[in-house]
Amino acid sequence: MPSRFVFSLLLLTATTAHAQAPEISADPDRMEQRILALGRFGSNPVGGVSRVAFSDADIAGREYVQDLMREAGLTVRIDTAGNIIGRREGSDDALAPIMFGSHIDSVPGGGNYDGDVGVVGAIEVAQMLYERGIVTQHPIEVVTFTDEEGGLTGSRAMAGKLTGATLQLMSHAGVTIEDGIRRVGGDPDRLDVSRRKPGEIAAFIELHIEQGAILDEEGVDIGVVEGIVGIRWWEVTIEGVANHAGTTPMHKRRDAMVTAAEMTLAINRIATELPGRQVATVGQIEAFPGAPNVIPGKVVMSLEIRDLDSAKMQQVFDLIAAESQRIARTRGASIRFDELDLNAEPAPTDQRMRRIISASAEGLGLTFKSMPSGAGHDAQDMATIAPTGMIFVPSKDGISHSPKEFTSADDMANGASVLYRTVLAIDNGALE
Amino acid sequence: MPSRFVFSLLLLTATTAHAQAPEISADPDRMEQRILALGRFGSNPVGGVSRVAFSDADIAGREYVQDLMREAGLTVRIDTAGNIIGRREGSDDALAPIMFGSHIDSVPGGGNYDGDVGVVGAIEVAQMLYERGIVTQHPIEVVTFTDEEGGLTGSRAMAGKLTGATLQLMSHAGVTIEDGIRRVGGDPDRLDVSRRKPGEIAAFIELHIEQGAILDEEGVDIGVVEGIVGIRWWEVTIEGVANHAGTTPMHKRRDAMVTAAEMTLAINRIATELPGRQVATVGQIEAFPGAPNVIPGKVVMSLEIRDLDSAKMQQVFDLIAAESQRIARTRGASIRFDELDLNAEPAPTDQRMRRIISASAEGLGLTFKSMPSGAGHDAQDMATIAPTGMIFVPSKDGISHSPKEFTSADDMANGASVLYRTVLAIDNGALE
Repeated sequence: MPSRFVFSLLLLTATTAHAQAPEISADPDRMEQRILALGRFGSNPVGGVSRVAFSDADIAGREYVQDLMREAGLTVRIDTAGNIIGRREGSDDALAPIMFGSHIDSVPGGGNYDGDVGVVGAIEVAQMLYERGIVTQHPIEVVTFTDEEGGLTGSRAMAGKLTGATLQLMSHAGVTIEDGIRRVGGDPDRLDVSRRKPGEIAAFIELHIEQGAILDEEGVDIGVVEGIVGIRWWEVTIEGVANHAGTTPMHKRRDAMVTAAEMTLAINRIATELPGRQVATVGQIEAFPGAPNVIPGKVVMSLEIRDLDSAKMQQVFDLIAAESQRIARTRGASIRFDELDLNAEPAPTDQRMRRIISASAEGLGLTFKSMPSGAGHDAQDMATIAPTGMIFVPSKDGISHSPKEFTSADDMANGASVLYRTVLAIDNGALE
Repeated sequence: MPSRFVFSLLLLTATTAHAQAPEISADPDRMEQRILALGRFGSNPVGGVSRVAFSDADIAGREYVQDLMREAGLTVRIDTAGNIIGRREGSDDALAPIMFGSHIDSVPGGGNYDGDVGVVGAIEVAQMLYERGIVTQHPIEVVTFTDEEGGLTGSRAMAGKLTGATLQLMSHAGVTIEDGIRRVGGDPDRLDVSRRKPGEIAAFIELHIEQGAILDEEGVDIGVVEGIVGIRWWEVTIEGVANHAGTTPMHKRRDAMVTAAEMTLAINRIATELPGRQVATVGQIEAFPGAPNVIPGKVVMSLEIRDLDSAKMQQVFDLIAAESQRIARTRGASIRFDELDLNAEPAPTDQRMRRIISASAEGLGLTFKSMPSGAGHDAQDMATIAPTGMIFVPSKDGISHSPKEFTSADDMANGASVLYRTVLAIDNGALE
């Protein structure tokens, strides 16, 4: 059956109820069973997984994913960056592939849904097409990216941004990223082969759990991701004068800890009071010399700012920096900001992709809302080389990177159904 | 010459000028030369010493001190706690000894004056008596206490407060305190032998650098110590909810770091605004999990409160605890205070001793002022078994526990001269 016909049919069957139209929906039971099966690779005693990239558990999980891909009628290969690519040819050789997928590696002590839902959901879509005998015009490529949690390794390679220095970093599995890529069947000496240039991928779509509590708390089915926020990090160094905590009167102190405390409150206040969805966080702190009986002479702490808009991030930082000068003056201390180069610019998704995803959700009678992704994703690299969209499904209580991570089978299937419709819409020229 | 006659003579020669009356003053050059000589044991490249107790440098320094004691006519022995005791008999066998001294061990990266001035000053006094042929009625004992910086080890043993658990603690020298005591010639299995009971010491006097900036800034020669402040320590545990720093909106955070910052400012404000000389310090802090991209779910920090008055310390803590309840409520966090048992009650000095020290300074034409000691000293243990006094001399800029520690030769000699007069006054019945 030509896919264009199917897509039209699907639109006709859409309802406004919260249930999926039965004939075009992903299978929640099959998805949940696969999620649980995947969770056995690297499972930990508290119900989550520690399936860090390049570990034996990761390698075993990747084998399982390749089996599922083949079951969905895909031809599997590993690219030189170690990405697993399950491909099925389309009817038109001249068209670039539509790619969709996510990752299966986890943080240490992670959960069963971050990444996995996107991979299982992408395979579900391929299998729905396969089982229905639908041949798309574009080739489709289901991807499982290498080492997302360790620094978006696979997608960076695909976007041509993985550099030699990064390859030498030590991964959580205890091998360098270079050796890790080799372990999973890639070839780090020929990374350029895995690179895709703009135009070589027709579109990229990633299904992912929200990792925040917005959809769950508001009872919304689908998040249409406006983009992945940019991230900037600074090391903040506060210097006062270390002194004896017993012999130095309160009014003679130039206490770096007290100055750091005032700074931390200012950072929180500025990010909270400014209109918008920006966030700013102090997550790390160390006092020197760091003894209960010594007034700290130095405090080093982290500052992270995230927003979808670079100018907004700069505005937040400028307000913090201005406030730091006032605080430093009144406390008799100095405050210095050293920025770390994260290479994490905001990555807005393609506006057309957002419209297609919204229409797909609407067509299925699902509620949806636009939202930024506060977390980083492979989609942010893909956005630099292809029209990119992201579909979020709810995370129970917003918990993520934790064994308590949970997304219901129905929510997962909703996400896969939206992905299915989105792929078909693109295949039918919705991007043109 | 009977000492009573000498003492009267000294009083007659006192002037109100800042110079010492030449015939009864300690020798600033000899003291400074000995301070510098002592500084060679464990000297570090930045001009200070790292002569931690029980180290080879400490043992070598102790040998040097024993040589000086013998040169001053003292008979030297090591008690079972490793304290060096240089004794000279008095004319009246029935009288208890007058003891004076301090310590020569340093903190890691310490200076040349903390402790050393008191030991060199005490030996100077013994040598002044010896060289003048003055025989006191009381025996005199010049003491160099073991391991002051590691927990007042020697004086605690002398006061009968050194327990078995403390003996097993690891010292900075990398040996347990028990093994350390053995290394310096003590016998940790027979610590009771080093114990002195109330009445067995007629008086104890410690000369020490101020370690604060009060005398230096106000241009006062001598501090008459009112007592050693009590010290209380708490581990403060702040619990919020750890969460993703990218996906958790500002207004949904229960950020333990922000709560800790508000608590730190409150502690500083309460201790500063309350009338009195109390101090409160947050010197140590750790955030968990402690990553720039995770909102801290837990922060553990230290709280130290010092004052000369137990009731005042309790008042400061009560105000902090009350404020913590308000902060915890508004931040959606919990704040718990776990007190550590430091056994550091305030130790007021003997009022009569303060009067004698003041009179001695006045008799020498030196300016003096009463002040608490914000730092701990062996004198606080000695105060539990004998009438105790402390003499402070200025610390340049109040710097201590640092290679930059400095006290001038004249200031050291002023302190030793006051100590000399004080010892003679006590020997002549000033305490009766």
